[in-house]
Amino acid sequence: MQVKAAVAFESGKPLSIETVELEGPKAGEVLVEIKASGVCHTDAYTLSGADPEGLFPTVLGHEGAGIVVEVGEGVKSVKPGDHVIPLYTPECRQCKFCLSRKTNLCQAIRSTQGRGIMPDGTSRFSLNGKMLHHYMGTSTFANYTVLPEIAVAKIREDAPFEKVCYIGCGVTTGIGAVIYTAKVEPGANVVVFGLGGIGLNVIQGAKMVGANMIIGVDINPDKRAIAEKFGMTHFINPKEIDGDVVAHIIDLTDGGADYSFECIGNINVMRQALECCHKGWGVSVIIGVAGAGQEISTRPFQLVTGRVWKGSAFGGARGRTDVPKIVDWYMEGKINIDDLITHVMPIEQINEAFDLMHQGESIRSVVTF
Amino acid sequence: MQVKAAVAFESGKPLSIETVELEGPKAGEVLVEIKASGVCHTDAYTLSGADPEGLFPTVLGHEGAGIVVEVGEGVKSVKPGDHVIPLYTPECRQCKFCLSRKTNLCQAIRSTQGRGIMPDGTSRFSLNGKMLHHYMGTSTFANYTVLPEIAVAKIREDAPFEKVCYIGCGVTTGIGAVIYTAKVEPGANVVVFGLGGIGLNVIQGAKMVGANMIIGVDINPDKRAIAEKFGMTHFINPKEIDGDVVAHIIDLTDGGADYSFECIGNINVMRQALECCHKGWGVSVIIGVAGAGQEISTRPFQLVTGRVWKGSAFGGARGRTDVPKIVDWYMEGKINIDDLITHVMPIEQINEAFDLMHQGESIRSVVTF
Repeated sequence: MQVKAAVAFESGKPLSIETVELEGPKAGEVLVEIKASGVCHTDAYTLSGADPEGLFPTVLGHEGAGIVVEVGEGVKSVKPGDHVIPLYTPECRQCKFCLSRKTNLCQAIRSTQGRGIMPDGTSRFSLNGKMLHHYMGTSTFANYTVLPEIAVAKIREDAPFEKVCYIGCGVTTGIGAVIYTAKVEPGANVVVFGLGGIGLNVIQGAKMVGANMIIGVDINPDKRAIAEKFGMTHFINPKEIDGDVVAHIIDLTDGGADYSFECIGNINVMRQALECCHKGWGVSVIIGVAGAGQEISTRPFQLVTGRVWKGSAFGGARGRTDVPKIVDWYMEGKINIDDLITHVMPIEQINEAFDLMHQGESIRSVVTF
Repeated sequence: MQVKAAVAFESGKPLSIETVELEGPKAGEVLVEIKASGVCHTDAYTLSGADPEGLFPTVLGHEGAGIVVEVGEGVKSVKPGDHVIPLYTPECRQCKFCLSRKTNLCQAIRSTQGRGIMPDGTSRFSLNGKMLHHYMGTSTFANYTVLPEIAVAKIREDAPFEKVCYIGCGVTTGIGAVIYTAKVEPGANVVVFGLGGIGLNVIQGAKMVGANMIIGVDINPDKRAIAEKFGMTHFINPKEIDGDVVAHIIDLTDGGADYSFECIGNINVMRQALECCHKGWGVSVIIGVAGAGQEISTRPFQLVTGRVWKGSAFGGARGRTDVPKIVDWYMEGKINIDDLITHVMPIEQINEAFDLMHQGESIRSVVTF
C-alpha cells in the first residue's frame, strides 16, 4: 500500500514528506494506522548524524499512537480496531530478559531492530523500489507502519492519540525511572538534574509516589514555573548559587538526596548526581544519553560508603504490561500530559517541530496525520 | 591499669610491644580483655603510611574477640563476663543511619573515631604520659582495650576466640557483601575478583546461599585449590586466557555475571567487574579499597542498559545484630573459618604476621595474648 511518510534521506538534512510503499504485515506482525507521533530528542540525535548507529534512508519516529488495521498470521494479542502504542522496547514475555523479572530490556528482536529491519531480516518500507530502514522498530513518522506483535501495547479506546503518544517514550521514561527503576518511596528527597520533558516527568512521578522534597536543577531559570506546576518544591540554578552544587544539595537535604536523576546526558552532571546522594543509601539513576565514547568517573569511596549508581531505559517499564497502566493514570487525572504538549501540527510541518526543539521553544511537539 | 600493647610509633616501622597505661571505661564504655586478634591488610595499609587518615602513635588492630571485664556508668547491653567482638562499624540503633533500615553505616561516633579518640574526645591509652591514638575505634592489638558500648557485639560463650575474631572484619566483609549488600539469590552466577581472604569469604557466602556458578579470578594459580575447597566452581587466570577477561566471563556465563565482587582494590579490575555483569540486571559490588585519589570509570551506557554499581563496607552487616548470627553459622558448621586462619602466634610475634601477609604466605594470621 501507499502511505505518507516523513523520510530522512541523509543525516543533517530536513525530512521530506513522501508517498512511500509499505508492505502488509507478515506472520507475527501488525499494520497500525498512526494517528499522532511525538518528536523526541532521540529522533533529532539520529537525524543529526551524531548517533553512531544511525542508518539512512529511514523513516524516523518512535513515540506514536494509533489503531490496528490488519494483523499477520498467528497474531493473537491484538486485532483490527484495537488502539495501540508502538514500543521501541518490546515485551515478548518469553526471552531470558523478560523471564528474569529484573529488567524491561526484552532482547527478542534486538539485533534486527538495531539493523533497521523487521525480525525476518527485511524492511516493509520502500521508495521507488529502494529499501527504507525502519527506526527503533517503530517508524512512527508515517501514517501507517508495520510492527512486530510484541512491540505494540494495547490501550483503552477513549485515550486521545495526540496526548498518549507521549507515553510511547518521554512520559514513561521519566515516570517509570521513578517508579520502576528507582522505586522511590513516600517521604523520600529527590533531586532532578535537567528540567526538560524527561525531567518534568520525573518530577510528576516523584510527586505521584509522595516524595518529600523534589529539587529541580537547571541553568535555565525559565524552567522554574512549569517545574513547580508539576511538583518541584525547590529550584537550584547552579549559576546563581555560591560554590559547588553538590555541597549545596547535601546541605539543603540535610545529608544528600535519597534519589537523584540525571535527565540531560552530561557526564559531569552524572557525577554530581551521584555525589549529591546521601551516604549509606542514596541511589542515582542515569536517564540522559551521553555522547558516543564519553565516560563517567567517581572515586570508588562514593560507592563503598553506600551510594548506588544505576541507569534506566524506557523507565524500566515493560511495554505491553506497564504502558497501558500509564495511559489509565493519564485518563484518571493522576498525571498531567496536556501541559507538556506545547505544539500540535500536521506531519507536513514536522521540520518546524525539530526547529522548535532546537530553539528550546517546545517541551513536546506532536505531529498528526 | 597497665596493659600489653603492640604500639605503632610511626609509619613504616615495625610495631613495638610495650606496657602502656589504659584508663578504665567511662560512661557508656566497656573494658574488654582481648583474647585474640586477626592481622588485616587495613592495619598494614595504615602502618605503611599510605592511609591519608592514619594517625600516630597508635594501637592498631580491629579484628578482635574477648571478654567484658568492666562496664562504665549506664551500660546495659553487656556485663562483665560476656564474650564480645569489637566493632569498627558500631550500631547505635538511634541515629538517622541505623533507623533508615537501608545501611549499616552507623554514624553515631564517626567523627571521634576518625580522629583516633573516644566519643568524649579523649584517649584511654597513654605511654609515659603521652597519649596514644585509638585505631578504628577498636585497638585490638592490646590485651585490654576500651570500647563504646555500641561498638561491641555480644556472642555465644562457646565460640573460640582465635577463630571468631576473624568475624570482626574479614569474614563478615566477604560473606556480608553477598548476603546483605548484593542479596545474591539461589541459582545466581557469581564472579569474584581476587582470591585473598575477602574473596574466599565471598565464595563461601555465595555457596551458602546456593549460587550456581562461582567463578574466581586471580593471576596467582596457587589460589585455585583453596578457592575450590570453599566453593569456587570455575577458575580464571587472566594471564592464561586468550583475549579480554570481560569477554571471557560473558561467554562463560552466557551473558554475564548476575553478581560480581571486586576484592582487590584495583580500579581497573573494578571496571572489569562491572562490565562483566549481565545486561539488564547484573550487580557489581566494590569491596576492595582503592588507593587515595584514584577514580573508577565506565561508559554510562553500561548502567543505562541495566547494570548496577555499588559498594560494601563491613559487608553491609549491622554489628550488634548480624555479627552474633555469623558466629552461630560458624559454630553450626555453615561456614569455614578454620582453613582461613593459617597462622596463630603470640602478640610478641606480630611483626612476623605482617611479614607473612606481605610475602603472600598467610591467608589470615591471628595473634593471641
